[in-house]
Amino acid sequence: MRIILDGMGGDNAPYEIVKGAVEASKEIDETIVIVGQEDKILSELSKYQYDTSKIEIMNATEVIENEDSPVRSVRRKKDSSMVVGLNEVKSGNGDIFISAGNTGALMAGSLFNLGRIQGIDRPALAAIYPVLGKEPLLLLDAGANSECKANNLLEFGIMGSIYMDKVLGRKNPKVGLVNLGVEANKGTTLTKMAYELLEKSTCNFTGNVEAREVPNGICDVVVCDGFVGNVIIKLSEGLGLSISKLLKNKLLDGFKAKIGAILLVDKLKSIKKDFDYTEYGGAPILGVKGPVIKMHGSSNAKAVKNSIIKAVPFAKEGVVDIISEAVLEMEELLISDEV
Amino acid sequence: MRIILDGMGGDNAPYEIVKGAVEASKEIDETIVIVGQEDKILSELSKYQYDTSKIEIMNATEVIENEDSPVRSVRRKKDSSMVVGLNEVKSGNGDIFISAGNTGALMAGSLFNLGRIQGIDRPALAAIYPVLGKEPLLLLDAGANSECKANNLLEFGIMGSIYMDKVLGRKNPKVGLVNLGVEANKGTTLTKMAYELLEKSTCNFTGNVEAREVPNGICDVVVCDGFVGNVIIKLSEGLGLSISKLLKNKLLDGFKAKIGAILLVDKLKSIKKDFDYTEYGGAPILGVKGPVIKMHGSSNAKAVKNSIIKAVPFAKEGVVDIISEAVLEMEELLISDEV
Repeated sequence: MRIILDGMGGDNAPYEIVKGAVEASKEIDETIVIVGQEDKILSELSKYQYDTSKIEIMNATEVIENEDSPVRSVRRKKDSSMVVGLNEVKSGNGDIFISAGNTGALMAGSLFNLGRIQGIDRPALAAIYPVLGKEPLLLLDAGANSECKANNLLEFGIMGSIYMDKVLGRKNPKVGLVNLGVEANKGTTLTKMAYELLEKSTCNFTGNVEAREVPNGICDVVVCDGFVGNVIIKLSEGLGLSISKLLKNKLLDGFKAKIGAILLVDKLKSIKKDFDYTEYGGAPILGVKGPVIKMHGSSNAKAVKNSIIKAVPFAKEGVVDIISEAVLEMEELLISDEV
Repeated sequence: MRIILDGMGGDNAPYEIVKGAVEASKEIDETIVIVGQEDKILSELSKYQYDTSKIEIMNATEVIENEDSPVRSVRRKKDSSMVVGLNEVKSGNGDIFISAGNTGALMAGSLFNLGRIQGIDRPALAAIYPVLGKEPLLLLDAGANSECKANNLLEFGIMGSIYMDKVLGRKNPKVGLVNLGVEANKGTTLTKMAYELLEKSTCNFTGNVEAREVPNGICDVVVCDGFVGNVIIKLSEGLGLSISKLLKNKLLDGFKAKIGAILLVDKLKSIKKDFDYTEYGGAPILGVKGPVIKMHGSSNAKAVKNSIIKAVPFAKEGVVDIISEAVLEMEELLISDEV
């Protein structure tokens, strides 16, 4: 298996990306192909000792920056690490593409270069959402589709269930729809229609979930439009940060408190770990004809390593093929719904 | 001034409501009229010593329950504490109505009984959102209007600014629009149109805000549709709860940690206070022809007391009249926008 890694994407590229690749190569048997400006990648690689049979470099002269327009950049920068990497997956020479680069460009590039799975209207970005004290849940769409129709939310539920089952290993995952209340008749035109579709589908749909319950891990797969998904992800990050800042300030204020905080330091560290996205690997893009993973833009070597390791089952379990087959069931549901 | 208080609304009615009224009456000069089943209110009141010239009872035989259908209940339960209370404000015998009861019914009742301010399309529920280490911000709509048009978001910005200025005392409040990114061209059809309207308005509009920045208090008034507002409020509550639960569990696990936690106990309490909605008073309903405040359903006496005290400027500063005048400016903006 060949894992294609964007060596130039993200705030810490290429150094943290290359470091993460080297660390991952010690734990898996797959070949890791780092795509990017050869001299820069080589100069980073030369810092480490590694099994040279397991890491390759593929030259790509251009870089898609975070400020670049997504659609324009993937159209024009044909020799960028992102476009070259996606084409490796398209041609079958690569089994999965992983990037910490421009999210919009990765989404657009996946659509243009790999194409959407036939019958999928809107591919989605699925986020791994940490649940305190439990396994993380999968939330989609996390921001790729800010305006959705009910059939898109159905797609998200089905694709998310498949990923949760095959890659994260949770069988018969519970699917919940973000809504104003738990009652079936609550919500907007969109959520009411999506509720009906999800209820008729083969998903293990457990009904509406209120945003309050998401951090408790009330279900395994949380479905919502990309605007709401973006709000959930970003608000959680922001609130987590501001609470830990406050904790630190308050706990270190005053002598008695300082002693207390020192005694608690291990515990506080373990709480921080529960929030730590670097543990969980990247976010899959579901619905395109090839496995693609988006890493956090500020990924460090540890996040890169974990994303690479957790990418293996995504490619191996044939998630893309299983989604293609599930589309049939979905189409029947949508047609019968229109009759 | 006569403050009309729903004695029967909320999870802890009437005991915590009556207790809160008694406590508030010691701090303000206004008359508090408790509406509800006279025998029950009297029996609660008899537990306390208070200035009988400052607390009155108004009998209302029916109660709107949390499970009642909002529209049906305010139409049918004409002698409920909520409907009777709202009618006191309508007739001019009361200056403000405060309730911890069924939110939907309070919204519907405010619309039917008081009516919307001419020119306001969608009255909104504005939530007081606690900001760690700073003054709270105002977020609207908090869930009354799950589907909105751009002009509704403009209304929310204008009404929120007026409330923030006149009642919460922050002059020239900064208004932000919840969006996927800070750039003006980001977002959905709705947010792009709302951005244009807000930019042309007399609001101190500072542009888009990402959900990540809301807990930091990036602006004074946060504008969004009611679905997103509901997600922000409920997710913040849920995340706050699950973090404090985790903190408690982790901190009290192990002997060394336990000693640390005991030394920190005052600090932890002061953090909890920063999250404590009971400090801030209730959430105003803006856009109807009379001041109405919704308290949290589980309000205790302290929350009730603070809501009553903070209700005084809402009624005194003529917020409803100022909103009525601001509508003119808004209408000019909407008309010129259509030409």
